[in-house]
Amino acid sequence: MDEIRRRMAARTLAAGEKLPSVRGFAAEMCVSPSTVVEAYDRLAAEGLIRSRPGAGFFVAGALPPMLLAEVEPRLEREFDPFWVSRQSLDAGPDVLRPGCGWLPADWMPHASLRKALRGLSRADDAILADYGPTRGLLALRRLLARQLAAEGVAAGADQILLTGSGTQALDLLCRFFLQPGDTVLLDDPCYFNFQALLRAHRVRIVSVPWTPSGPDIARFEAAVATHRPRLYVTNSAIHNPTGATLSPPVAHRILTTAAAADMTIVEDDIFADFEPEPSTRLAALDGLARVVRIGSFSKTLSASVRVGYIAARGDWIEGLVDLQVATSFGGASPLAAELVHAMLSDGSYRKHMAALRTRLARRRKETIAALAEFGVEPWTLPRGGFTLWCRLPDGQDAADMARTALRQGVVLAPGNVFSVARTAPAMMRFNVAQMDPKVLDVLRAMPGLRPGQA
Amino acid sequence: MDEIRRRMAARTLAAGEKLPSVRGFAAEMCVSPSTVVEAYDRLAAEGLIRSRPGAGFFVAGALPPMLLAEVEPRLEREFDPFWVSRQSLDAGPDVLRPGCGWLPADWMPHASLRKALRGLSRADDAILADYGPTRGLLALRRLLARQLAAEGVAAGADQILLTGSGTQALDLLCRFFLQPGDTVLLDDPCYFNFQALLRAHRVRIVSVPWTPSGPDIARFEAAVATHRPRLYVTNSAIHNPTGATLSPPVAHRILTTAAAADMTIVEDDIFADFEPEPSTRLAALDGLARVVRIGSFSKTLSASVRVGYIAARGDWIEGLVDLQVATSFGGASPLAAELVHAMLSDGSYRKHMAALRTRLARRRKETIAALAEFGVEPWTLPRGGFTLWCRLPDGQDAADMARTALRQGVVLAPGNVFSVARTAPAMMRFNVAQMDPKVLDVLRAMPGLRPGQA
Repeated sequence: MDEIRRRMAARTLAAGEKLPSVRGFAAEMCVSPSTVVEAYDRLAAEGLIRSRPGAGFFVAGALPPMLLAEVEPRLEREFDPFWVSRQSLDAGPDVLRPGCGWLPADWMPHASLRKALRGLSRADDAILADYGPTRGLLALRRLLARQLAAEGVAAGADQILLTGSGTQALDLLCRFFLQPGDTVLLDDPCYFNFQALLRAHRVRIVSVPWTPSGPDIARFEAAVATHRPRLYVTNSAIHNPTGATLSPPVAHRILTTAAAADMTIVEDDIFADFEPEPSTRLAALDGLARVVRIGSFSKTLSASVRVGYIAARGDWIEGLVDLQVATSFGGASPLAAELVHAMLSDGSYRKHMAALRTRLARRRKETIAALAEFGVEPWTLPRGGFTLWCRLPDGQDAADMARTALRQGVVLAPGNVFSVARTAPAMMRFNVAQMDPKVLDVLRAMPGLRPGQA
Repeated sequence: MDEIRRRMAARTLAAGEKLPSVRGFAAEMCVSPSTVVEAYDRLAAEGLIRSRPGAGFFVAGALPPMLLAEVEPRLEREFDPFWVSRQSLDAGPDVLRPGCGWLPADWMPHASLRKALRGLSRADDAILADYGPTRGLLALRRLLARQLAAEGVAAGADQILLTGSGTQALDLLCRFFLQPGDTVLLDDPCYFNFQALLRAHRVRIVSVPWTPSGPDIARFEAAVATHRPRLYVTNSAIHNPTGATLSPPVAHRILTTAAAADMTIVEDDIFADFEPEPSTRLAALDGLARVVRIGSFSKTLSASVRVGYIAARGDWIEGLVDLQVATSFGGASPLAAELVHAMLSDGSYRKHMAALRTRLARRRKETIAALAEFGVEPWTLPRGGFTLWCRLPDGQDAADMARTALRQGVVLAPGNVFSVARTAPAMMRFNVAQMDPKVLDVLRAMPGLRPGQA
């Protein structure tokens, strides 16, 4: 019954469609035909399916609404991408969040934001009350074009489209490039919300193991040849969750492979400004031919002011504008775009980011030292950012540990939440900026993490 | 060639799928088989399709990105929903917009917004920099729950989900309820962006003629029985573009019909506060059982601060939260929600809306009188709001007139932009708040609209 419900939720069984034959489904599920008959009878009693004598069972009437959580109901809640998101977003102020993917509020440039808000309170009526242009605030797009040029990505302001967030940028690109049933290639591990978002687009996910210098390139080439993915979605610099950085030769082979297979690449580059200096970017090497770049300000300026952007080929931007008008009647709020523009151009941003990088470098060292006491070791040493991808001592299970910690008011991010192939049961992502001393106390009390294990 | 391209863009021809046979397609298009052979050969030369000897033609490789404008390329640009949106949004400040769907910036409560911005500049760091809770700011949801209760809609704060805009609310609901190929029922005429949005969801649109008291109920019942639509999307009060209001008996029959067919209704109620007093609401009669209500503040407070909301059954809200986290990592920007909350609760909102209703009532009268001179007459007298749906004098074509006006810097909204069945070539929607004297000068100079025609 669960499996049929799952297929209906995932739309692999559509309204009016015939269910698998009793015999075939029994073989597939390794159960007896009488078990399948009973399951079908119960589903029919619930009104979800209908029997047509002599013809078999069919999905009844309209499908129920799309409950993403039911698309893979057999996932333990602890491995479900929504679990970490909702725990992190909805937890009260007393909960500690070393598993979350952002900086504490008091690390953000609030003086600059307060100044921008005061400035905006004196702006023209039109800025305060009108819809903005379809691509978003021109002054901000020009500033972004100059920043991109400094990183080696040549894009005019008309090749930049502002969106409501980095996630909305990726969502818009998925609508533009994908249709249900397409295949998308991800890194394993990768940012967990990629999986949740792609589930909503009803596409097939294939993953390739990620190494400290990028995807395992032999496996990458094999996956592209075998599965012909339409898109590859990745973070090349300060990869989430590992913090690793793509090496130039791997970047070159990714682009060559993508060109041969006519695959589009989405480079989600929201951690760009956390790097001490720009490393290799797919968007720069490729010249935005088949690579699309996503950026956002939620990690560097404010997650409360929501602005993201897409930089891409001009003809793609034209189509994306239509799609964004149709589905949200505009992207970033004009007021939010004004705030981001004011914060980026008031002269304090460069200093803010330099101070943030120094502070994070110190925190990374301290956190590595503190975790070493429990035998928890980083998988690689990131060049920047706030995440550490760590291996737990032998025999420790990250999901068990997350369950225990949650009861004590600490949200952790266990490895398999990030792993498409569930290959990271003994890994954990720590946010070095959220390592309150109480987090270490909770870890210290974990049965498998006693001090002196290292 | 255009038709095959259209089918690929609309995804009715998927990657790898076989094209119609030469003979069958020739009959369907009323052309000779040799014309089809030539078209297929040219498409193959472009690389869009591939011939497999003995088996026919197939869609080659990956589909091109989804260009909404190509889904119905045979539409004249003037009837295309994107045309009015993009003209209105991207036009320079000198262009006049009697065709647009919002108030001039200086009609909006900017003093209240400026005050809210100054207040926010003194808020806690967490409000300024953190992601908010997944349903959105609790204080605003509580305030909305009280407002809804006053309109007879009982919904707890946990049955309200904040979104990035009214359009994003509808988009999220479409993702939740629809799958490609489903049927959606619309009013004819209706808000033009409904068509554009539904095109992006790849669903079939069926429409029912709208009367001054709601949809033609006999046609409505017949359409539901024949097409079994999954959703009906409507504005019941101050309907866009007509300004008409649903009558209680029609509302009752809509709900009875929907219940019998298990159809869900989305009531887009963004003009609610423009009514002198609340009229019949489907959401109120139904008690949010199968009706979902959408609201927004873009028409009453600011289109630059983007906040919309959904009020619905609790179990649907749970599923919508997951879907919104997956696809945009949150809905309304927390900062925008704070601004809206401050503006709604500072005591000035009620007075602002009362003044706006009085001002609009006067403008409606003046505009009706001014248009009467040219023989342009309102189809009905709206109870509130800023749109007038008008019939042009005999023999006049609204699209021709819109083309002529655009050359003189005036964006008009010709009737067929709103009409699913293209039954409104002689209708025009005017925004009474945007009727600059220069607009009347441009109308006065139109060949078919000479004064004294009435």
